[in-house]
Amino acid sequence: MSRRIVILNPNSTVAVTDGISRAVEPLRLADGPEIAALTLEEGPPGIESQSDADAIVAPLLARLRREPAAAYVIACFSDPGLAAARDSLTAPVFGIAESAMATAMTLGERFGVVAILPASVPRHRRYVRTLGLSSRFADSMPVGLGVTELADKAATLARMAEVGRRLRDERGADVLIMGCAGMAGQRDALARATGLPVVEPCQAATAAALGAVLLAP
Amino acid sequence: MSRRIVILNPNSTVAVTDGISRAVEPLRLADGPEIAALTLEEGPPGIESQSDADAIVAPLLARLRREPAAAYVIACFSDPGLAAARDSLTAPVFGIAESAMATAMTLGERFGVVAILPASVPRHRRYVRTLGLSSRFADSMPVGLGVTELADKAATLARMAEVGRRLRDERGADVLIMGCAGMAGQRDALARATGLPVVEPCQAATAAALGAVLLAP
Amino acid sequence: MSRRIVILNPNSTVAVTDGISRAVEPLRLADGPEIAALTLEEGPPGIESQSDADAIVAPLLARLRREPAAAYVIACFSDPGLAAARDSLTAPVFGIAESAMATAMTLGERFGVVAILPASVPRHRRYVRTLGLSSRFADSMPVGLGVTELADKAATLARMAEVGRRLRDERGADVLIMGCAGMAGQRDALARATGLPVVEPCQAATAAALGAVLLAP
Amino acid sequence: MSRRIVILNPNSTVAVTDGISRAVEPLRLADGPEIAALTLEEGPPGIESQSDADAIVAPLLARLRREPAAAYVIACFSDPGLAAARDSLTAPVFGIAESAMATAMTLGERFGVVAILPASVPRHRRYVRTLGLSSRFADSMPVGLGVTELADKAATLARMAEVGRRLRDERGADVLIMGCAGMAGQRDALARATGLPVVEPCQAATAAALGAVLLAP
Amino acid sequence: MSRRIVILNPNSTVAVTDGISRAVEPLRLADGPEIAALTLEEGPPGIESQSDADAIVAPLLARLRREPAAAYVIACFSDPGLAAARDSLTAPVFGIAESAMATAMTLGERFGVVAILPASVPRHRRYVRTLGLSSRFADSMPVGLGVTELADKAATLARMAEVGRRLRDERGADVLIMGCAGMAGQRDALARATGLPVVEPCQAATAAALGAVLLAP
Amino acid sequence: MSRRIVILNPNSTVAVTDGISRAVEPLRLADGPEIAALTLEEGPPGIESQSDADAIVAPLLARLRREPAAAYVIACFSDPGLAAARDSLTAPVFGIAESAMATAMTLGERFGVVAILPASVPRHRRYVRTLGLSSRFADSMPVGLGVTELADKAATLARMAEVGRRLRDERGADVLIMGCAGMAGQRDALARATGLPVVEPCQAATAAALGAVLLAP
Repeated sequence: MSRRIVILNPNSTVAVTDGISRAVEPLRLADGPEIAALTLEEGPPGIESQSDADAIVAPLLARLRREPAAAYVIACFSDPGLAAARDSLTAPVFGIAESAMATAMTLGERFGVVAILPASVPRHRRYVRTLGLSSRFADSMPVGLGVTELADKAATLARMAEVGRRLRDERGADVLIMGCAGMAGQRDALARATGLPVVEPCQAATAAALGAVLLAP
Repeated sequence: MSRRIVILNPNSTVAVTDGISRAVEPLRLADGPEIAALTLEEGPPGIESQSDADAIVAPLLARLRREPAAAYVIACFSDPGLAAARDSLTAPVFGIAESAMATAMTLGERFGVVAILPASVPRHRRYVRTLGLSSRFADSMPVGLGVTELADKAATLARMAEVGRRLRDERGADVLIMGCAGMAGQRDALARATGLPVVEPCQAATAAALGAVLLAP
Repeated sequence: MSRRIVILNPNSTVAVTDGISRAVEPLRLADGPEIAALTLEEGPPGIESQSDADAIVAPLLARLRREPAAAYVIACFSDPGLAAARDSLTAPVFGIAESAMATAMTLGERFGVVAILPASVPRHRRYVRTLGLSSRFADSMPVGLGVTELADKAATLARMAEVGRRLRDERGADVLIMGCAGMAGQRDALARATGLPVVEPCQAATAAALGAVLLAP
Repeated sequence: MSRRIVILNPNSTVAVTDGISRAVEPLRLADGPEIAALTLEEGPPGIESQSDADAIVAPLLARLRREPAAAYVIACFSDPGLAAARDSLTAPVFGIAESAMATAMTLGERFGVVAILPASVPRHRRYVRTLGLSSRFADSMPVGLGVTELADKAATLARMAEVGRRLRDERGADVLIMGCAGMAGQRDALARATGLPVVEPCQAATAAALGAVLLAP
Repeated sequence: MSRRIVILNPNSTVAVTDGISRAVEPLRLADGPEIAALTLEEGPPGIESQSDADAIVAPLLARLRREPAAAYVIACFSDPGLAAARDSLTAPVFGIAESAMATAMTLGERFGVVAILPASVPRHRRYVRTLGLSSRFADSMPVGLGVTELADKAATLARMAEVGRRLRDERGADVLIMGCAGMAGQRDALARATGLPVVEPCQAATAAALGAVLLAP
Repeated sequence: MSRRIVILNPNSTVAVTDGISRAVEPLRLADGPEIAALTLEEGPPGIESQSDADAIVAPLLARLRREPAAAYVIACFSDPGLAAARDSLTAPVFGIAESAMATAMTLGERFGVVAILPASVPRHRRYVRTLGLSSRFADSMPVGLGVTELADKAATLARMAEVGRRLRDERGADVLIMGCAGMAGQRDALARATGLPVVEPCQAATAAALGAVLLAP
């Protein structure tokens, strides 16, 4: 049990959890820790606002406390409950946005965030300040697609690529972060379309958790 | 109704709410807005951790939505639910920590925060970064008294004064912020003991709310 | 006398003083402090440069010292003499630019300043650094109209709205500050035209002064 | 070959390379990448100055170019040649100082660096600025022991613990970084002595390299 | 005339002007520009407050406009009127504090300012923010001697050395700036007493002016 | 010998050294220090990458140690070996990029860098962070001409002017820095074409060296 990494998807959409699990498949090794991707059933279908993010903190913390693990990953780009989870759990806890930004710092000078919703942009800007990374931040820009349009993978990729190129050309980004969980399948295509390295946040946080577990005292 | 300011104390201790209400009494004017200090019954007796703060966001938002008002004040120094409340309410919402820091900026070069618990210090440091005010921040230091000791007002004031003087002498603070709600009664004594202006956060946020209501379009 | 707020317009144009006085009318309450808007007769008709701002500091300080008050507002967006006035007066002193920026911090993530003259832009950028608010600053952009054109209210509003939209769309501003005294009459129209909250600086500083006076020890 | 991580110790002391290799042993997994710790024979016995660090860049780059790998780690806390290596190699390259600081950001609010030599302190301060992490940095403080004294492990640990406690108590550090390669054996003892999490930089960078290799397109 | 540098001492104490003139003597070269150190007769005997600094801006600007020169130096550590002078004169204008800080950036990682009066410290902190140099600033600390004591050169040097050592040991300064005009005679002794490079601000600004004049188009 | 300034061009192109020497001709005064512009024969024909810059540090340091001087200038816009040279030489050492940025701070609010190669832009952004000058930095933009095109002076100037105007209009630069050595001949034309002051980095650093030598203890 002490070699188990728990990734908790705080929305209730199992398909998203499954996508996250596939994204971290390369981090599952024969003699490495088990990596379990779990769904917070109490969560909403998607976390689209600060209010959604705040509302799931209490059930999220309760669930984390019930799941024994050597490390935890909170798989929502708002990093809900991250500080609280660190205060109340002894195992290390990783937030996917924080880990993505820490990883991006080692891949370029300025990271840009490809957001989904326009309403997420101020949240991203605020969080970059919280982390003290303003001088490494190009900007966050939204793809601005509705739920139906996001179901169209080709259209979504096309918009993500367009936003990625604007972050590169207008804001000077030389590394991109996918600003939500569950789109890992398009990471490599986005990298090819923009010529920039792309960080998928669930992968970044789970890789950090893997290191922490392997190196634990 | 459109001229009512709602201050919501998110802990369930009515004595704290009463203290807040007394602190803002000077802001109640004959032809000014009504100022109501309310208690969130669902809250814990005190908010002592990030986890406590996160846990009350959902009931806090629900309560704010039920209370018609021209402006809201969230009366906990962690500003729990502030961003979410702003997203979901049309009236302006003020957090007491944010308002205290904005006010302190007009009273000195570097503000110091007199915290109650040692565990609050990292939270204060993180929040100062969130607000982008690192270059105006002396530091946060805790008085470090237990619940019983805090009941002794003279002892508490003595410790707050000691911390205030250390912030002044060792960290260069020239204005102090009381890092919790409900201690307004000691504001003036702390100012005299340190020779520095002291910002009481519930007063700062309610004064900001008063201005916003009076000047609303 | 101890309940009087003095707003000093450091230019000699009485029409500007009258506009300021009207702008703060909602802050005059039956049992609240008197709010007097005064004109510095020694000032130039308008303060258009750093040199103009510096030149009126000495008469401005002399006048403030002669006017007994419980709080002072210096009503020029360069905040001329603010630090000096604080050093030499015991009552609190508010600068309209500083107060506007402190207020804007509670209304959005990034504030943009709608300047009148192109020459003011470097001054605004410098002052934002002085306040330590660079990470909250979108930019300052000028409307760039001459004196005659400014007399045409509709044309001025149209240009202000255009600049406000550019600050919003090109620089990410989500709150605007009117970068001069005396245009309060267009605050609400500018807010409607841009969909953003707009801070009128004389109102912001006088509201802060009102809070300070009511809460004074 | 594409699943090999090369760690290059740029000093010529094989005992240091061996210590690094032991430190990353937990990251060697049955079906994970090979992790090879190599010694730059052209290097000096120890890298003690900026001049030493600069002087080994050219042979270091030449050696990296000759070693096929899926990821590289430069195992000197000055991160010599990091930017140049990234420019000229297609595989990802990690510097141990950069990776240690990125990791520390996920473990605390303010990291302190336990330096060996007093002369390293300005270099650490400069590098923190280069990374844009000033607002997360407590400080760097030297243990200040000579070569002979460093051979005494108990004495070295005692001094490291003393420095760690000063960083914690005087500068507010809540996470520590060991500011040199080759002292991994004392990581856990330093953590126990200070009560703070401790980041060993070679481990941090190699864990990052492991993640990058496993997740490569 | 186009090869004349005017240094204007904005206080009326001719002995200070004479000290400045001696300090810049090494910058007077056979075929270089004339360097004239002038006294602003309208100034007070010493500039001890922001109010003093603001009050002399108008006569200072008037005097500069009357003195033809290829470059100007304003010889007061508050840099009074610097921005205004730049707006209204075509020749370059240097402030001694700004030039001292720009020079210190090339001599160390963190500069400390040896202030005379305690009241100057907040002004120095504010000005460092104005210049955007917070991450290079150790702190400002006052020697805190009265006028009579300053007349005792040995006592003054002893106090300056003590303050310099505190800036070095407690705040990490590795270069010092003398925080006032007219003490150039003690520059080298202060450097010897602290082991740190010391920047004398009138020299720094006049050297910058010399370069600007020689390199003018 | 103690009054000699050595400027070392770390590339092996003598024509560049000659251009530098002509650029600093106005700083050679009858009774001032000798100013010698030397070529590092071991260098490549041009320094175009971080790798090139790092590779010449060792021979550059060796050469500087062999050249007795009262001050040194490293004449490459990457400031290669600057920190190392300062550690190992007792005379002051100036880097042309650092000196250019320190000089630009006294000429405007935000400096823009006119780079030659697109690959230099991330290096410039990183270096601005190293110096702690992010809040004064507009951006770096490349002219993007190949070697053949750079030989065409009119075409180069036209592109530099275009980049300068974009830095001014799109990024708010009000002072420009030429981001490479050896183009001093176009400084004044670039200033005329953009209406902005232009800093030539070899001139800036040599002027700083001149001041340091004349004012040495």
